[in-house]
Amino acid sequence: MNFSINRDLLLMNLTNVSKALSTKTPMPVLTGIKFDLKQDFLLLTASNNEISIQAMIKNKKQLKIEGEGSFVVPGKFLIDIVRKLDAKTIEFNAVEENIVKVFADRSDFTLNTLEKINFPLISFAESDTFIKLDVGSLKQIIRKTTFATSLSEARAILTGVSFNVSTNKLEAIATDSYRLAKKFITFEQKNSNVGVVIPSRSLDELNKILSDDNDSETEIHFSPTKALFKYKNLLYQTRLIEGTYPNTNSLIPTDFLTSIKFNKAELMAAIDRAALFTNVESSNIIQLQLSADKTVEISSTTNEIGGVIEELTPLECSNAVHFKIAFTAKYFLEAIKSFDSSEITVHFTGEIKPFIITGDFDYNLTQLILPVRVS
Amino acid sequence: MNFSINRDLLLMNLTNVSKALSTKTPMPVLTGIKFDLKQDFLLLTASNNEISIQAMIKNKKQLKIEGEGSFVVPGKFLIDIVRKLDAKTIEFNAVEENIVKVFADRSDFTLNTLEKINFPLISFAESDTFIKLDVGSLKQIIRKTTFATSLSEARAILTGVSFNVSTNKLEAIATDSYRLAKKFITFEQKNSNVGVVIPSRSLDELNKILSDDNDSETEIHFSPTKALFKYKNLLYQTRLIEGTYPNTNSLIPTDFLTSIKFNKAELMAAIDRAALFTNVESSNIIQLQLSADKTVEISSTTNEIGGVIEELTPLECSNAVHFKIAFTAKYFLEAIKSFDSSEITVHFTGEIKPFIITGDFDYNLTQLILPVRVS
Repeated sequence: MNFSINRDLLLMNLTNVSKALSTKTPMPVLTGIKFDLKQDFLLLTASNNEISIQAMIKNKKQLKIEGEGSFVVPGKFLIDIVRKLDAKTIEFNAVEENIVKVFADRSDFTLNTLEKINFPLISFAESDTFIKLDVGSLKQIIRKTTFATSLSEARAILTGVSFNVSTNKLEAIATDSYRLAKKFITFEQKNSNVGVVIPSRSLDELNKILSDDNDSETEIHFSPTKALFKYKNLLYQTRLIEGTYPNTNSLIPTDFLTSIKFNKAELMAAIDRAALFTNVESSNIIQLQLSADKTVEISSTTNEIGGVIEELTPLECSNAVHFKIAFTAKYFLEAIKSFDSSEITVHFTGEIKPFIITGDFDYNLTQLILPVRVS
Repeated sequence: MNFSINRDLLLMNLTNVSKALSTKTPMPVLTGIKFDLKQDFLLLTASNNEISIQAMIKNKKQLKIEGEGSFVVPGKFLIDIVRKLDAKTIEFNAVEENIVKVFADRSDFTLNTLEKINFPLISFAESDTFIKLDVGSLKQIIRKTTFATSLSEARAILTGVSFNVSTNKLEAIATDSYRLAKKFITFEQKNSNVGVVIPSRSLDELNKILSDDNDSETEIHFSPTKALFKYKNLLYQTRLIEGTYPNTNSLIPTDFLTSIKFNKAELMAAIDRAALFTNVESSNIIQLQLSADKTVEISSTTNEIGGVIEELTPLECSNAVHFKIAFTAKYFLEAIKSFDSSEITVHFTGEIKPFIITGDFDYNLTQLILPVRVS
């Protein structure tokens, strides 16, 4: 079996599929990409324990096929080769057993294949329960929630993002129990109810594949143990995290002591500088103080290095109470970064109570942070 | 004592001086940058065991001084602060003992200083023995030689670049005993004879400071144990490596079996792909074969992955002998990269004899590589 394919087309698809390559694995075949050559299309498949990805290439101008068959080649290695080739077309020849020959201009590669009988049979089955949404919305959901998931496997359920579909709404929630991110989008079409938890890493890898073409459509198909994203010529499937996601609705406060609106860039710069005098590994705690004259001071101090006080005049302040709160700078910065608005509002409920952040132009996005008690 | 200074001017000078900051040191004060404030200039100084750098800032428009004095502040930390400030002007106030206050817009920093009495007294003394050369030539010498120095301290002398000044010539040589780089430049003025060995790392750090303004002039002052580079408002001093540099003149062959001229980009791409089938950690060996019809094949093979043959038609070949040689791909690639010419010539003397590389437009540059014996 032989085929020739446009170099750029192959590289793009190999790169997409490679997001599911195993690096450390007891099954060497999972470090490979499987090529399935059919009469008029080529399938590329890769899989690790969490993610499986399949690309279908059909373009008749850029892909010429002679004969059917399949083989598995070391994935990272093949991508290195294709990346370093500047030929327009690459030819593959898989006539001999356990060997694939690759030709491009005056380069002549001989690749030992991996045992294809060991490659898992992966079903990319669609489901009756699915939603349609545009790429832009999916990317927003991912970018604005995954950072708030837990890195610790101690409570595995918190390492994923909860996707809750009701009739005409998708709500995504992430929390590591110190902060929470919540974003929802609404649908015109009616959907069945679904509640699943998708591994944060699977969403981040998917985000790398999603293009900047925000208007193209994706489908998410839900099965009891898997979610399948259909995007362009790709099938992107991830396992789900088992278990019941905690009910977080009661956590988000609705009555506020005071709401303070800031210029986002100014606030970020001030917090970024204040965080210099903290230690990310240990505490990373900074203080925010509101005075009766509506000025805000953000400060931090260490015994060894010194301290800093940053003064800010908020754009608005609903209630000029004297008020002091302490929190983790990293959580605050990550939360603010998730907003596209140039002005954001921080709503405080009390000195040791959770506060939330919203943005004028970030519809349906809420970031919540738990403060820390300091002496 | 007080002063205010333009933020960009300060950041540029802190960044330059920081190349001499110690990271791991039993002397905490060496992680600091010393500020010496005089009536009409400011000196910034940093030093580690190898390198000492001093910047003199005099600009009266961008630096306003009130009072004289000195203090030492944590270097990396201060640079972080200044980098994160977007104020135009930064004010320093060192009135209190052991504390420096830094003000910028509405930021107010308090920095604990390091014990300035522990900061070493560094003499940046000029010497009667010095050469003048333009920045462009100095950068060329550094970029085309340091990569060939040894990383192993086993023969410390080979971790440096030999600078040999004779009446009207500066010759720079680097070798790790597997390859050798040699570059010389000529002078119009007459110089005294000098032979010193400068640590490769000191030259690489200096190269980061040297601007793209190739025509500005530098001076190198030679003392028995130190070399001092004067560049713009900077004094850059490095220790020398003690010992006698090996005589390498007899190593460079002058009679050749055949000389082959290549397109540099084509040759690099072919070697880069061939090197994929080698292991940098272990051998990284590739083969080059010349046939009687003047075609060149570059190849490598591994048992596990496979192999590659790259065919090239050289631009010229002085003598079409059948000929085979093996060498370390990394050494060859680094050597070729040091040439600015788009065409380079490889001069072979025999299958197991050193070969050299030259370039049409790279005057006075020779790269030598020792082949490896393969079965």
